[in-house]
Amino acid sequence: MSIRVGILGYGNLGKGVELALRDNWDMQLKAIFTRRNPENIKIKTKNVPVVNVSEIEKWKDKIDVLILCGGSATDLPKQTAEYVKYFNVIDSFDTHAHIPQHFNHVNEVAKENGHTAIISVGWDPGLFSLSRLYGRCILPEGKDYTFWGKGVSQGHSDAIRRIKGVKDAKQYTIPVKEALEIARRGSQEELTTRQKHTRECFVVAEEGADLARIEKEIKTMPNYFDEYDTTVHFISEEELIKNHSELPHGGFVIRTGQTGESGEHKQVVEYNVKLDSNPEFTAQVLAAYARACVRMYKDNEYGCKTVFDIPPAYLSQLGGAELRKTIL
Amino acid sequence: MSIRVGILGYGNLGKGVELALRDNWDMQLKAIFTRRNPENIKIKTKNVPVVNVSEIEKWKDKIDVLILCGGSATDLPKQTAEYVKYFNVIDSFDTHAHIPQHFNHVNEVAKENGHTAIISVGWDPGLFSLSRLYGRCILPEGKDYTFWGKGVSQGHSDAIRRIKGVKDAKQYTIPVKEALEIARRGSQEELTTRQKHTRECFVVAEEGADLARIEKEIKTMPNYFDEYDTTVHFISEEELIKNHSELPHGGFVIRTGQTGESGEHKQVVEYNVKLDSNPEFTAQVLAAYARACVRMYKDNEYGCKTVFDIPPAYLSQLGGAELRKTIL
Repeated sequence: MSIRVGILGYGNLGKGVELALRDNWDMQLKAIFTRRNPENIKIKTKNVPVVNVSEIEKWKDKIDVLILCGGSATDLPKQTAEYVKYFNVIDSFDTHAHIPQHFNHVNEVAKENGHTAIISVGWDPGLFSLSRLYGRCILPEGKDYTFWGKGVSQGHSDAIRRIKGVKDAKQYTIPVKEALEIARRGSQEELTTRQKHTRECFVVAEEGADLARIEKEIKTMPNYFDEYDTTVHFISEEELIKNHSELPHGGFVIRTGQTGESGEHKQVVEYNVKLDSNPEFTAQVLAAYARACVRMYKDNEYGCKTVFDIPPAYLSQLGGAELRKTIL
Repeated sequence: MSIRVGILGYGNLGKGVELALRDNWDMQLKAIFTRRNPENIKIKTKNVPVVNVSEIEKWKDKIDVLILCGGSATDLPKQTAEYVKYFNVIDSFDTHAHIPQHFNHVNEVAKENGHTAIISVGWDPGLFSLSRLYGRCILPEGKDYTFWGKGVSQGHSDAIRRIKGVKDAKQYTIPVKEALEIARRGSQEELTTRQKHTRECFVVAEEGADLARIEKEIKTMPNYFDEYDTTVHFISEEELIKNHSELPHGGFVIRTGQTGESGEHKQVVEYNVKLDSNPEFTAQVLAAYARACVRMYKDNEYGCKTVFDIPPAYLSQLGGAELRKTIL
């Protein structure tokens, strides 16, 4: 019997999950839940209902796992703990600093209700976290570096849009090639924020706006830009739409360590992703871990989990014997 | 209480494990077992006994996990199933085609005796297998490629040494840069054996040997060399010792897939390692999984496991809360 999946939230991520499920023959989309008026939402899958979230409880016994596709700022901190009362759930909560708090909250409610939750699934946190963990355990004497990009940062793009006189903007985070090479070399140097990444901004200004002031406001914005070398390009709205409508991203986790009697052998492990679509890739990761979520639930493994707790085999449709024969 | 570890076999791998344990404060080397006369073996660790393997049964209650450091050709097919009678064990069995058979054999004896075994731990099989698994589950519509090198292949070096007139030899497996680029590009082309790797041989010939014949025998050797573009260099014994005594290796696992409504977004995931010492790196992986082996045993998870069955968190000395806070 196939795994019955619900999606909550139909933005970029929710749409990505809808498509990802098509690539997984053992999963079946049962319903898409939304806070909006369902009549205004047109989805890509035939014969699947769009349901207002107020009615979600009625779906309690019709869904094996609910994939939460809301944002980390305000949606998930409430939604995950709320819906784990009724469902096994999985989310992509990505505010690193608040993960412990989110985990504890979800864990408590999940255990009370005999459900399984997996939080912070995606590529960072998620696959990159796994790379950091494997890297540190295998090369305990060493150092790791995480780089992001080249890719669009939604948070930084939003920050620029809040500046007076800015009509629209896209910000790219770019890893510095020389810094990547230093990391790979294994000399284990410290790299500063400025050394590791640059930021490139494409900005559509309102007519008559003071471009010099906008540029200065961007470059000096605390936390977002002041610690980086930032380039600002003013472009037309047409150019922005034509050349900067996609959401590519990427990144690198590099662990270097040394082994041998006096550390004479350098060992370098690198994991990297290069993504044409950040939300669609995150959606693919969520789909695979949704399968694992249902398996953990069937094993009576209730409570909150992260990618660290999931045996890799649980992500696969294949059984153990098949995996050992074909992939190991 | 620290994990009490035994090592069976004191070749390159066993020596690597001995050193790896120094980097893991929660593990303690209790004894090294050998088929040789213990008096002839000098180890790097003070106050640790070297014991003939005939006495290993006496150590039954003094060791939490035994790390088997023998070879895959003749040692491990017998040893792993034999010693799992008395110990939790872990090995680096790397003959891919025989893994299912080895697994079944070890699994049966491990279950009978209430012990835990993890087989085929290292980087391939091992970390590369994990990358292939994660890659296929996350991008079900796609293709993966595994490349090896640049590095010394012991099997191929041995094969050359068996040729008449050859005194010594080292063979490097080298991934072809253009093929790597094709794999990364995501066009999902098939790559032939010849396209993916070349082989470079450094050969010390006996005095007066027929070099042309040796070169021809190498290049036409079935399975080992005939499907590859192979280069043969004849060098002096001094040169071989000076320039080719190390055991570097490396490799790449590349998974590319497409997402979106009509596959319009390419997604590329790559894992690669660059190792100054192949056996020392494999030893590091074994040490981390030895920790996981003991944890699985304490969870009453008896029988044979592979890297696919181990929750990543089990490799770490840190608890769940600490991992979520610092690495996730």
